[in-house]
Amino acid sequence: MPGPVILFAAKSERWDQYEHPLRTALSEVGLSDAVLTTQAAPETVDYIVYAPNSRMQDFTPYTRLKAVLNLWAGVEDVVGNDTLRVPLARMVDHGLTEGMVEWVTGHVLRHHLGMDAHIHGQDGVWRAGIVPPLARDRSVTILGLGALGAACAGALAALNFDVHGWSRSPKTIDGITTHSGKAGLADALGKAEIIVLLLPDTSDTQNVLNADTLALMPTGAIVVNPGRGPLIDDDALLAALDTGRIGHATLDVFRTEPLPPEHPFWTHPKVTVTPHIASETRAASASRVIAENIRRGEAGEPLLHLVDRDLGY
Amino acid sequence: MPGPVILFAAKSERWDQYEHPLRTALSEVGLSDAVLTTQAAPETVDYIVYAPNSRMQDFTPYTRLKAVLNLWAGVEDVVGNDTLRVPLARMVDHGLTEGMVEWVTGHVLRHHLGMDAHIHGQDGVWRAGIVPPLARDRSVTILGLGALGAACAGALAALNFDVHGWSRSPKTIDGITTHSGKAGLADALGKAEIIVLLLPDTSDTQNVLNADTLALMPTGAIVVNPGRGPLIDDDALLAALDTGRIGHATLDVFRTEPLPPEHPFWTHPKVTVTPHIASETRAASASRVIAENIRRGEAGEPLLHLVDRDLGY
Repeated sequence: MPGPVILFAAKSERWDQYEHPLRTALSEVGLSDAVLTTQAAPETVDYIVYAPNSRMQDFTPYTRLKAVLNLWAGVEDVVGNDTLRVPLARMVDHGLTEGMVEWVTGHVLRHHLGMDAHIHGQDGVWRAGIVPPLARDRSVTILGLGALGAACAGALAALNFDVHGWSRSPKTIDGITTHSGKAGLADALGKAEIIVLLLPDTSDTQNVLNADTLALMPTGAIVVNPGRGPLIDDDALLAALDTGRIGHATLDVFRTEPLPPEHPFWTHPKVTVTPHIASETRAASASRVIAENIRRGEAGEPLLHLVDRDLGY
Repeated sequence: MPGPVILFAAKSERWDQYEHPLRTALSEVGLSDAVLTTQAAPETVDYIVYAPNSRMQDFTPYTRLKAVLNLWAGVEDVVGNDTLRVPLARMVDHGLTEGMVEWVTGHVLRHHLGMDAHIHGQDGVWRAGIVPPLARDRSVTILGLGALGAACAGALAALNFDVHGWSRSPKTIDGITTHSGKAGLADALGKAEIIVLLLPDTSDTQNVLNADTLALMPTGAIVVNPGRGPLIDDDALLAALDTGRIGHATLDVFRTEPLPPEHPFWTHPKVTVTPHIASETRAASASRVIAENIRRGEAGEPLLHLVDRDLGY
């Protein structure tokens, strides 16, 4: 019996990046007979490896499809697709979580320590005695306590930050003060000297930071968004930066990516743009996750990291 | 019987900062009858609270002195003073360690993530795909594994950095590769994509980073010095920055402080200066350490954090 047919349906530059790691990972789980390809007759395909911006929109012709395996954590491009009738798994990549923790911890410490003044301001003036508070006296709020949010909360708590977390439904995480639901959001925002957005992009979470919610945060609060662009009402954020209500925004994700050259975020003195690097999937570790799910599919075992299509993530 | 006489022999601006916290801390340990003062006849003084740059140089007249309690971790200004014949305790302050861990972790992550390019370079160009390695693929070497060095090593290891540590005598720390002695220094430097200097300032450690040792580090390595200014041969560092052998230096301590306005570190594009803020003693927590040692001295219990005068720290 031939091995499963796996259609790699991401862009061609991803194929260059993933072909070798995927073949290696498939061999490692005993699937060296798998047919890994970028071209296949739809009715022959067992699994689709999918990424945002894949051209594929109609899954109907894929009559023997067993599962769609997303290369990214975010599934908003595909989760609402009515032609998709088989299980959808998102990427939960060890490397992706670690990269996110590093980016979030680094930028939170950057703002906590007031680093920019030293990085920009080498003017020969020794400003002694301006010492930041200890992390234990600095509150950081994380919106979203999924795998990424919980990992970041844990890393910040280990550095003694006063960490608050907010999630849709109640959660308990050691060392962190948790809030939940609509009523808990105001409390979480009120504690946010620094806020980190790690919510999924759903109809409920869009514009979670808007003029009303920004007004609930402490004056001069810092916004850090490595989550999803639509979580922020951009115009409201720009207005809050201009009035000083918000002190700075460090943004890794945007409603349109690449961020257009004319977008005011690029030139605003209180905005730092990073080009969606907070949590780039690493090919080697992601390929192992994909291969393990195909092994499970072939063995009749439950897939890892399945998306709840009703919740949207 | 009156309480002990405690002479506060640091500069007057420190008195403003410490008088209230010290009185509070003394009361908390049952010494509300202590006489805390900035002026006392030498032969009446039981304890001296000392800080670098204290004018006091001759301890001979202090005939009933029981101990000198340093407000700072570094004791190089006083440890070689031959007129000092009583126990000398250094500051080991919870807040001081936490502040150091925050500064070191923040600046290591800053360099690891390549933040400066984003903080400086908001030019409207979206440079996708330039992703830093994960921390687990980044080696960081810490020279000095005392209380501060060990705490920083632990925090960086918790973020998955490949942490190497070097100390004069062999040490074992979980999760860290340790090196020691003259022979081990070359190995530790060879691993130092980022090096953090947390050695004490002794005749053995001065110029530990010089032209020869800088040449043992990986090309483009980053130097982070929150320890002591004399650990670095400044001219050798500047030369290594100019050739590209060293990629950047982030320096919090200097041979002369305040760093003189004309010093080339201020204007060098590959140097970041911070004004000795990495580990500023916090008055409240430091006062508790001083008060506890005076309580111990009065009760005849051994003092905490005694300096070994032969080793120099």
